[in-house]
Amino acid sequence: MVDGALRACDADPDLRLLLVGPSEVAGEVLGALPAVDRDRVTVRPVSGAVGMADAASGAKRVDTTVRAAVAAVAEGVVDGAVSAGPSGATVTAAVLGLGRWPGVRRPALATTLPAVEGPVVLLDVGASVEARPGTLARNAALGAAYAAVVNNVDKPRVGLLSIGTEPGKGDRARRAADPFLAGQQLPSGARYIGLVEGYEACLGERADVVVTDGFTGNVLLKGIEGAYTLLGGPAQTVPRAAALLGVHGTVVVCHGAAAGADLASGIALAAHLHRRSAAIEISTLLGVIHG
Amino acid sequence: MVDGALRACDADPDLRLLLVGPSEVAGEVLGALPAVDRDRVTVRPVSGAVGMADAASGAKRVDTTVRAAVAAVAEGVVDGAVSAGPSGATVTAAVLGLGRWPGVRRPALATTLPAVEGPVVLLDVGASVEARPGTLARNAALGAAYAAVVNNVDKPRVGLLSIGTEPGKGDRARRAADPFLAGQQLPSGARYIGLVEGYEACLGERADVVVTDGFTGNVLLKGIEGAYTLLGGPAQTVPRAAALLGVHGTVVVCHGAAAGADLASGIALAAHLHRRSAAIEISTLLGVIHG
Repeated sequence: MVDGALRACDADPDLRLLLVGPSEVAGEVLGALPAVDRDRVTVRPVSGAVGMADAASGAKRVDTTVRAAVAAVAEGVVDGAVSAGPSGATVTAAVLGLGRWPGVRRPALATTLPAVEGPVVLLDVGASVEARPGTLARNAALGAAYAAVVNNVDKPRVGLLSIGTEPGKGDRARRAADPFLAGQQLPSGARYIGLVEGYEACLGERADVVVTDGFTGNVLLKGIEGAYTLLGGPAQTVPRAAALLGVHGTVVVCHGAAAGADLASGIALAAHLHRRSAAIEISTLLGVIHG
Repeated sequence: MVDGALRACDADPDLRLLLVGPSEVAGEVLGALPAVDRDRVTVRPVSGAVGMADAASGAKRVDTTVRAAVAAVAEGVVDGAVSAGPSGATVTAAVLGLGRWPGVRRPALATTLPAVEGPVVLLDVGASVEARPGTLARNAALGAAYAAVVNNVDKPRVGLLSIGTEPGKGDRARRAADPFLAGQQLPSGARYIGLVEGYEACLGERADVVVTDGFTGNVLLKGIEGAYTLLGGPAQTVPRAAALLGVHGTVVVCHGAAAGADLASGIALAAHLHRRSAAIEISTLLGVIHG
């Protein structure tokens, strides 16, 4: 946390941080900052936290760091929140503290993967774990808008993750979502290109957006991460931060095993999302009347 | 196909092949073989095939290559069958032509991945696409026996693939299967170590066997394959052949995009499974009275 905060301040001179958590940790950050930068960091001391082994419902307690961070977003004290706690708890805290966009029952976590032919947006990577055709269709719209607004992709190509590219491949949820998506209009001039396989997330040949449920997406993301480790690839190119889409505000979830560099990239992502007005732009593109 | 058959014969002097398919293709293989090796290859001409875009039920037609290959196993003409056709059709053909082991409703495809700490068995990678707790528990037993019999792993450690390692992480099927597996006896002295994440398939730190449903396993395998491509890893270390477990006989499924080297490794896997009497040994370990 300390390392991540320092790296983030160093990388972005316009960044200001509100540290939400135990005073000792915040004190470490302040102590390590050059005197001239200390007024860029303020502290909201909170001692309660949701642990990795706690249920996501732990975030229903208001005396936790994640709830306090989300409250700071809701109050307008900060422009976005970043958490490396359990993603389920962060999603719960964000829904309770910020509220969902109308029409979005289940928020999704979107991440951008480096791929052979250019970046690929993968979602959901862990917010909602059951595969439902309606959620998959909503994720397609969220991902298309995200690719356009956040990654500047023109007319994103959207694929539905399955286990073959021919129509009819996959489980029940995919077989129901595929023909539905073929007839659905997507935002940002995006077009649905059909089913894609797991390697598409690393190739980007046919799709700029790979759509799936949060269980499969999380497994895929971590499998790719494992392959990077096995092959000794550059660890910094594995994304360890994801944007939460579907709530009124900017929320970023970092990998639970996040190192300083990962946390700094999560903070940078939150700043980028805010500067692009991503939450407002994406919800508007979805045809949702904002708040 | 031609390249794969030639490579396989070259790599294993004891191998003999029955080519099941169009006479022209078989003729190419025979023509390319040194004269001294030609009696190692025989031909069963079949012109019908199940295409990639056909439903798995296409394998219900008996006039297809995959049915004819499985029939040759059932007749005892060959010791195993290898197919690079659609895996769903191969599974259907194997079930119809060879019959399932008692107690195995849904066969599983098992593959062995190279990992940091040693090989990891991943299953199911595409035979059965819906995640059911009972199928996951059966896959755990199949994978444990496979690791012991085929990969010589002593007391395999078995993990259930999920999106966190703490109990309670995952979707409904995982949350139901995890406590069940904790109380289930596994063959070959294997022990269940709980939930693992996607990177475990490439690390092998906590588990020798990673258990999942065929949808998630297929996505994970192909995602790892994509990461290899992105990072320029040695393509030959990505497994592109999987053993079908749960039917009376040796059947190997190769990747639909299999190149000659992949097909040759699939043929080598089938020979290895036969030499280990894998189908009989594994079904016996499962406590099944072999038909």
